[in-house]
Amino acid sequence: MEKVRMGIIGFGCRAYGMMDILLGFDDVEITAVCDKYEDRRDNAQKRVTEKKGNVPFATTDYKALLAREDVDAVYIATDWEMHFPIAIDSMRAGKAVALEVGGAYCVQDCYDLVSAWEETKTPFMFMENCCYNRDELLATAMVRKGLFGKIVHCSGAYAHDLRGEVTGGKENRHYRLRNYLNRNCENYPTHELGPMAKILDINRGNQMVSLVSMATLSWGMEQYVEDRRDTINPDLIGADFAQGDIIHTLIKCANGETMMLKLDTSLPRSYSREFQVRGTKGLYEQDTNTAYFDGQPEYWSRVEYVEKYKNSAEKYKSMLPDAWQVITQEALDAGHGGMDYVELREFVDRLKDGREMAIDVYDAAAWMVVTCLSEESIKQGGAVMQIPDFTKGAWKTRPSQDVLAFNEYKE
Amino acid sequence: MEKVRMGIIGFGCRAYGMMDILLGFDDVEITAVCDKYEDRRDNAQKRVTEKKGNVPFATTDYKALLAREDVDAVYIATDWEMHFPIAIDSMRAGKAVALEVGGAYCVQDCYDLVSAWEETKTPFMFMENCCYNRDELLATAMVRKGLFGKIVHCSGAYAHDLRGEVTGGKENRHYRLRNYLNRNCENYPTHELGPMAKILDINRGNQMVSLVSMATLSWGMEQYVEDRRDTINPDLIGADFAQGDIIHTLIKCANGETMMLKLDTSLPRSYSREFQVRGTKGLYEQDTNTAYFDGQPEYWSRVEYVEKYKNSAEKYKSMLPDAWQVITQEALDAGHGGMDYVELREFVDRLKDGREMAIDVYDAAAWMVVTCLSEESIKQGGAVMQIPDFTKGAWKTRPSQDVLAFNEYKE
Repeated sequence: MEKVRMGIIGFGCRAYGMMDILLGFDDVEITAVCDKYEDRRDNAQKRVTEKKGNVPFATTDYKALLAREDVDAVYIATDWEMHFPIAIDSMRAGKAVALEVGGAYCVQDCYDLVSAWEETKTPFMFMENCCYNRDELLATAMVRKGLFGKIVHCSGAYAHDLRGEVTGGKENRHYRLRNYLNRNCENYPTHELGPMAKILDINRGNQMVSLVSMATLSWGMEQYVEDRRDTINPDLIGADFAQGDIIHTLIKCANGETMMLKLDTSLPRSYSREFQVRGTKGLYEQDTNTAYFDGQPEYWSRVEYVEKYKNSAEKYKSMLPDAWQVITQEALDAGHGGMDYVELREFVDRLKDGREMAIDVYDAAAWMVVTCLSEESIKQGGAVMQIPDFTKGAWKTRPSQDVLAFNEYKE
Repeated sequence: MEKVRMGIIGFGCRAYGMMDILLGFDDVEITAVCDKYEDRRDNAQKRVTEKKGNVPFATTDYKALLAREDVDAVYIATDWEMHFPIAIDSMRAGKAVALEVGGAYCVQDCYDLVSAWEETKTPFMFMENCCYNRDELLATAMVRKGLFGKIVHCSGAYAHDLRGEVTGGKENRHYRLRNYLNRNCENYPTHELGPMAKILDINRGNQMVSLVSMATLSWGMEQYVEDRRDTINPDLIGADFAQGDIIHTLIKCANGETMMLKLDTSLPRSYSREFQVRGTKGLYEQDTNTAYFDGQPEYWSRVEYVEKYKNSAEKYKSMLPDAWQVITQEALDAGHGGMDYVELREFVDRLKDGREMAIDVYDAAAWMVVTCLSEESIKQGGAVMQIPDFTKGAWKTRPSQDVLAFNEYKE
């Protein structure tokens, strides 16, 4: 395959940024676009024509897009609810899939996704961009080098004040809004879970065996609406949001490690993924890009500690994958500080080369199933949920697989 | 009562610092000291004589101390296992109790502690010094002023690398050592839970209803021992530690809030209590003494955020209790940055004035029971544990009670 002809399904907001990156690739052509809303469909088509000259096929019916012979692969960025059916139909139609992240609504969807891949072997990649981010990759490189000793625990968050995004937007179209109104769960686990699962070799020598989730009541969104009665979407005044403000999820791994996820999206705060890796010989902390090792002075003031160790992980940057060694300013500016570019380049490269995807359908199923299991755990007051083994035991022997190859450490 | 005659029971390490503060009080006399080891007993007696001139009664039998007529009150800082029997015997002997912190080994002990107080009404204070710390009090003052809106979640940690302390020391005497070898639980919950429980009015309008705990395996202590084979206590080489390296505990409150505790004591790291308060209108973060409010700019870089808001809570210092407005350098230097002094002064003042203790037997029972419930939850793979209501329903009507009165906000 010299050129990948791609269809893009779902143009809320996310797909525009990703499409712009793809439009910049010489070996990609956008041949079809789809959104269930006509205005979005037309905007997407216009944008391709303006940037690249061609007029892509445009439709409100994703099945019409999947029927096209001029589509080799699809990038799916619809609402979360449609991720599974479209991804499954795409694989069955023989279109390679790049599936944007989200969570599952039921366990069965995850099994069906796995079955669709096992039956078709259509290339499938779960597009967890944080797995391609510089910080998380730097931490992973240091883990692989053994700098932190045995890894004991990883934690992270999707800590992002989404009150404006969820309540804003046109005609209540935002899929997050209905989710926040109607569900109470770890609705967006993968930004932190993806990199952590890679570090802990989940599905590849290790397994997530169980989780518990606990939620606060929902006060943040309602306070936000109340404080903005004069300007907010009037449909939301007095609305009863189901989604708890903060959801913690603890995950136990087969080899004895734990992970902690925090969803923190409806209270005032600044953005952070709070990514941390803890080992018997050291730790990595994303907030300050800190590496701290056994034997270094212990500090009793966090401020002093940060001043001392901030960016100390930079010393190890020679170990970053090639994609981050040669990254251009254009790529850095293209979306989320470069990770979107690196991720899409990797999808296209692996597809063209016929290489297996590094974030595969088993990862997608295991990471997304956390959402519906957390929902059930919360309903049952924090009950333990067993996490299915979508690999049917193969995790015991599947080899470790990083999303990109690391380099050697050089002073 | 013009002068409080005190006995001190348990001279591991903690009691010396606390005794030195008490020896500095004009209205306190140390009339008796006790430790089960003769060398500690003798050292304690000598220290009193050197500093104050009197020769206190000294014994290895705490019951002999409790039988003394010249003892009005006891400060108990023994191993955790003996906290309950000694506190109960003390109350029954009519000696006012200042009980050092720790966790419970079984639920029944907590009930027995409550019964001893209810039957005797002997003054009892649980000595959670972090409730008297400046940061936690500053945050609490801001909460009471409504600056953070409705409080949704509190989190904190006992994050303290104790590998040296647990494995060091004389003849394996350290009570932590046998606990780390034999138990796996949130063994030290109260430094973070105490201030959080005060903020959320636990036992006073609110209640902790359930918890779940999850533990990693135990690798940190064993790695530490292995790396120091030549110098470590030889009894510990190859020892099998039961205590997981990191324990997370999630607690659900009757009014819908959650709390998260983290015990993090056997991996390399620097000290922090990671105390955070989250509300619908803002947050407090102890690590950087940050107050952040709804409407302030959102930052995408944690480092920038910290540079912007670090110590922003200081603006509200006029609200701190009087004890922190007039604190002396001597008090600040006396132990843990001043909180030990403020706490002991408060115990003595309330005892002399016949005022109720602000951290009472119900708080002690509710906070300490977390330890044995976490142990059971971990054993059962993260099962939900119901937290007993030691107030027998009285929590619904008991009024909110801060440990110290706050002042008004002044620019």
